[in-house]
Amino acid sequence: MITLAVDAMGGDSGLAVTAPGAAAFLKQQRDVRLIMVGDEAAVRKALAEAGAPMERITIQHATQVVEMDEAPQSALKNKKDSSMRIAINQVKEGNAQAAVSAGNTGALMATARFVLKTMAGIERPAIAKFIPSAGNHMTLVLDLGANVDCNADQLTQFAVIGSELFQALYPEKGRPRVGLLNVGTEDIKGTDTAKQTFKLLRGSKLNFVGNVEGNSVFTGEVDVVVADGFVGNIMLKTIEGAVKFMGSAIREEFQRTLFNKLAAVAAIPALKGMKNKLDPRKFNGAIFLGLRGVVIKSHGGTDQTGFMYALEEACHEARAASLSKIEQGVAVQLAALDEARAQEAAEGETANETQ
Amino acid sequence: MITLAVDAMGGDSGLAVTAPGAAAFLKQQRDVRLIMVGDEAAVRKALAEAGAPMERITIQHATQVVEMDEAPQSALKNKKDSSMRIAINQVKEGNAQAAVSAGNTGALMATARFVLKTMAGIERPAIAKFIPSAGNHMTLVLDLGANVDCNADQLTQFAVIGSELFQALYPEKGRPRVGLLNVGTEDIKGTDTAKQTFKLLRGSKLNFVGNVEGNSVFTGEVDVVVADGFVGNIMLKTIEGAVKFMGSAIREEFQRTLFNKLAAVAAIPALKGMKNKLDPRKFNGAIFLGLRGVVIKSHGGTDQTGFMYALEEACHEARAASLSKIEQGVAVQLAALDEARAQEAAEGETANETQ
Repeated sequence: MITLAVDAMGGDSGLAVTAPGAAAFLKQQRDVRLIMVGDEAAVRKALAEAGAPMERITIQHATQVVEMDEAPQSALKNKKDSSMRIAINQVKEGNAQAAVSAGNTGALMATARFVLKTMAGIERPAIAKFIPSAGNHMTLVLDLGANVDCNADQLTQFAVIGSELFQALYPEKGRPRVGLLNVGTEDIKGTDTAKQTFKLLRGSKLNFVGNVEGNSVFTGEVDVVVADGFVGNIMLKTIEGAVKFMGSAIREEFQRTLFNKLAAVAAIPALKGMKNKLDPRKFNGAIFLGLRGVVIKSHGGTDQTGFMYALEEACHEARAASLSKIEQGVAVQLAALDEARAQEAAEGETANETQ
Repeated sequence: MITLAVDAMGGDSGLAVTAPGAAAFLKQQRDVRLIMVGDEAAVRKALAEAGAPMERITIQHATQVVEMDEAPQSALKNKKDSSMRIAINQVKEGNAQAAVSAGNTGALMATARFVLKTMAGIERPAIAKFIPSAGNHMTLVLDLGANVDCNADQLTQFAVIGSELFQALYPEKGRPRVGLLNVGTEDIKGTDTAKQTFKLLRGSKLNFVGNVEGNSVFTGEVDVVVADGFVGNIMLKTIEGAVKFMGSAIREEFQRTLFNKLAAVAAIPALKGMKNKLDPRKFNGAIFLGLRGVVIKSHGGTDQTGFMYALEEACHEARAASLSKIEQGVAVQLAALDEARAQEAAEGETANETQ
């Protein structure tokens, strides 16, 4: 039985979204329990109104709420009894297998990192997301904004944790193909950091396929795409913008002439299918990776359907991806990297001696 | 009368694309002449086959061709009689108002920079492109890959040249709204370089609207989006990938059921309209900005229609945007920046003295 801890007060709309989202989720998933964390009376009332199955819900009282614009350090220091903090504590204490929050991203990351700690050898956690791509494939992209400045070691660590998560979630797909997001596929492309990362990944035991360009996220040619949080975040927002823009363009086109308006009626099922397929709410639920616990971040402005999908993402991860197995895989990969580096250094010395 | 110099041998397919592209272009534009640069006999034959109006074409012989994978330095040193070099020479010598090439981007940039030189105060030229956005707006994005590493001064220079070009092309739209591509709209977001650039742009005389996110390229809320070439190139490729992916998703959806297949027949005009609207060939033609001459880069793998649009982009720029006016505008903006910087430095000293 999976148990998820939910920050019931987080997000732009708080309980108005989390309570019906939780109710809808529990109706779809029969073998899951939720710990809803927040103001007890308010949470109970909202869940009752949403018709939630209370027999699979525990309410955990929390007196505080982290504000959406609160500084991470302030949340860490002053909000020890917040719904966000206590939800993460549930994972730390083993009461839940994952925590879900639609709250302030910076505060959630700082709190998760402080409470759960990073995996051994991982300097910084990253934010990852699955992007739908050709052939019903899903491409895992990270980092999406947790770290705007990254060095080659950190990017290589992202590749390792991304690859291990992908493998844990989709073992049937074989060794995950890892690509480094760059401005061209040739080995020598990009910034100095990109070049260094390329070398590290080439020497790793990952299934590194080389540099990939922005469009590779959609082609299905790669399973994990690695970028720093600056580039990754801009990429994610660009995709959101492009999808929205094309959606409007389709709508406009089907309104342009009387004939097109009539055609639109016949096209409703196809257009609905299309909309449904690319519904951003379905891809809600960003994964905080590299922590010793599963934390899923829902979009702050999502609705109850979007929040339900964030809970499903958490459930999927908690169910399929054994954290200890991922940690073990990460340790093996990082050890191989250290070895490759030591060997390279030794070869460098030998080369110097023989000069 | 506008004259464009065309690298007739450049691109993946050379004359097979440039000759019919040139013929189609000249049939649409009555008051334009072309100087087609390349192997004279081959060019003449290809133009004849394409039915090009020879009375508005001059053929300029060139004995060499820059290879698509040739290193820029090699092209610069060893290909002084290449079709690419001689096409750019035509602009330098005043025989043409713009040069167009589908050849190797790196070699084209290096050659253009060497022959034409950069505008006063511009350290590096940038590659810019118009991206279609909401409300039939076009957003100018730069740099798209000429400079993977940029400091705050260079990014600020990109903002200046982008703004001046936009203003020259669309004076009726008022002062161009310039945005800095970043991971959030708050002033303090992003890398150190982004923060420094923000400060410089805030102190400039540009119509700087602040940080913008990836989706802002499509909303029409901004006219010029500034990024370094690493981020800009990844963004451009991401957009290309997203558009292609959504196009396939629409096609698949209209094939999914018999009803949808029938609906697709009715929807043909709307779907065609949509395809036409977002046809990437229409947005072919990247602008090399910051040079003392107009150079347009066509996609290397485009077809004759795409090449025709690159020629139209060159023609539009040569016609509408007076280079001397842009240079003057750039000089005024850069002087204002220097003044702002000097003032800040002076204030810093005063503050130190009064401490």
